[in-house]
Amino acid sequence: MPKPILYLGVQYKDQARGQLAELSDRYQIKDKNQLEASDYAQIEIFFGSDLDTLRAIYQGEDRRLAWLQLDTAGADYLPQEVMADPKVTVTTVSGIHAPSIAESIYGYLLGVFHQLFIYHDQQEESNWHRYEHVKNLAGKKALLYGTGHLASEIARIGQAFGLSCYGVNTSGRPVEYFQNTYTQTSVTEQLSEMDIIINTLPATAETENIFNQHFFKQMKTNSYFINVGRGNAVVEADLQAALEEEKIAGAYLDVFQEEPLVEDSPLWQTKNLFITPHSSGRVEHFRDDIFKIFYQNYQAYLSGNFPSINRLDKKKGY
Amino acid sequence: MPKPILYLGVQYKDQARGQLAELSDRYQIKDKNQLEASDYAQIEIFFGSDLDTLRAIYQGEDRRLAWLQLDTAGADYLPQEVMADPKVTVTTVSGIHAPSIAESIYGYLLGVFHQLFIYHDQQEESNWHRYEHVKNLAGKKALLYGTGHLASEIARIGQAFGLSCYGVNTSGRPVEYFQNTYTQTSVTEQLSEMDIIINTLPATAETENIFNQHFFKQMKTNSYFINVGRGNAVVEADLQAALEEEKIAGAYLDVFQEEPLVEDSPLWQTKNLFITPHSSGRVEHFRDDIFKIFYQNYQAYLSGNFPSINRLDKKKGY
Repeated sequence: MPKPILYLGVQYKDQARGQLAELSDRYQIKDKNQLEASDYAQIEIFFGSDLDTLRAIYQGEDRRLAWLQLDTAGADYLPQEVMADPKVTVTTVSGIHAPSIAESIYGYLLGVFHQLFIYHDQQEESNWHRYEHVKNLAGKKALLYGTGHLASEIARIGQAFGLSCYGVNTSGRPVEYFQNTYTQTSVTEQLSEMDIIINTLPATAETENIFNQHFFKQMKTNSYFINVGRGNAVVEADLQAALEEEKIAGAYLDVFQEEPLVEDSPLWQTKNLFITPHSSGRVEHFRDDIFKIFYQNYQAYLSGNFPSINRLDKKKGY
Repeated sequence: MPKPILYLGVQYKDQARGQLAELSDRYQIKDKNQLEASDYAQIEIFFGSDLDTLRAIYQGEDRRLAWLQLDTAGADYLPQEVMADPKVTVTTVSGIHAPSIAESIYGYLLGVFHQLFIYHDQQEESNWHRYEHVKNLAGKKALLYGTGHLASEIARIGQAFGLSCYGVNTSGRPVEYFQNTYTQTSVTEQLSEMDIIINTLPATAETENIFNQHFFKQMKTNSYFINVGRGNAVVEADLQAALEEEKIAGAYLDVFQEEPLVEDSPLWQTKNLFITPHSSGRVEHFRDDIFKIFYQNYQAYLSGNFPSINRLDKKKGY
């Protein structure tokens, strides 16, 4: 029987492949260009999110697939037969985007609070006008929907700025860096005390349209709303109305009901709305960072302690 | 003899005046509108930076002035007779702008690293273009000229982002939050390793034109320069050349050789330069914040432990 295959769906140079080979000679390491038809059945470890190869594995009758290390934070695009296969452990790179998203959020907030986007526009006109009105992040309160990887990173950095962070999760259990936590139903009068509300929740049925007219009405007129979770949580027309009618002071959307946002969407020109094209999670050294996760999981896999990082709960879907 | 006067050069409402009156009835509390000609000689405590009143005090032959609490971070505008008066203790509100300046710096860096200024421009055009290229603050190195209030605040927040901060001060003594510190002459090969260089130094003869062609040449081509100290430290034509020739990746100036920056200055349109109109230190609740400093110093003054915060070293000038 041939050696099982470690399949690299992400292209890496010899150095990285050498690092993997040094850990064990149990596997043939192959990338997409090196795969032959007979190889699919021999793939035991799969690194990447290349669905063609994954489907090819499941088209054969025999397969050795045991571990699928995705190069994405989510897994909602995986074919049903993979999700249902009890022999396959799935790991993700969940959390890898958290520092970038947190940096983007603070870039937005500090830019708006200190008029930096306005100064950027004024510079074009050689205009030295100073605004009296600024806001400081220090002393403000933020409510975060979700208390996972991403929300915790936002709250941890917030602490350094003197921003007090509160969290919403399914049980209201306490989480490090959060002053207090609530459930979605127990957070009520707190909404009107918050300067900033941030959605970090993944897309599930429970989060659909939860940020709607009723919700925005409870926010302060000098508060800000941010969505870096999933687009389906926000009723966009309601947010637009809240902004145009100055029920809230500003908003930042990185995710939308439909992406890309169509050119004639009224959101583009909505007052006090800042838009990024689902880009807040972009990572400078993405390939290096996901390789580190794979490498660490591979070490654990080889030693029988697998998996150490980001095992997918197939029932929950994240 | 009449009661000595506590002079409020900054206008405060009854509530604040009441708080001061509660601490002691030793003083008459007066603001500018309440001053009569005979009062100048009776002013013992002076809060503000109202030079007319200050000069009037020194025009008389007798004066009781003992403590001058400025409402500014610097003191370089004080009349010579005040600086030379051994009976007068001067305190400043140095440090009060530090959180705002730090917030502005991080707003600039995160905005540039995550393309937020570009996305702001694209939004005008309803343009969903995603940039592949981003930078993360996490993992970068910054060198700060100065290790005082402001620089320490920048370094403290940097730590939360995973930014390693190094400092330059007169002795090279270690300072909290800095990985390492150097003197201006001992920092040499480190310059080429830094991703970000930030000047926070006050204006003194030693800092004049220290950021010049020779200096910018030592920086990496993918590095950033920031000046929130004083304008006289930077040779603006040399910075402009370094940016136009892409010797460095970007720069942010909040302070300039001459302010306001004239409309036909070439700096306005210099490539990869971001300009704010000496506004980075603007504080949201300035009057409240300086009152807190005055109040705390007043408590100390009344108890004989004066001064507790921000005593000016008249020889150094800061």
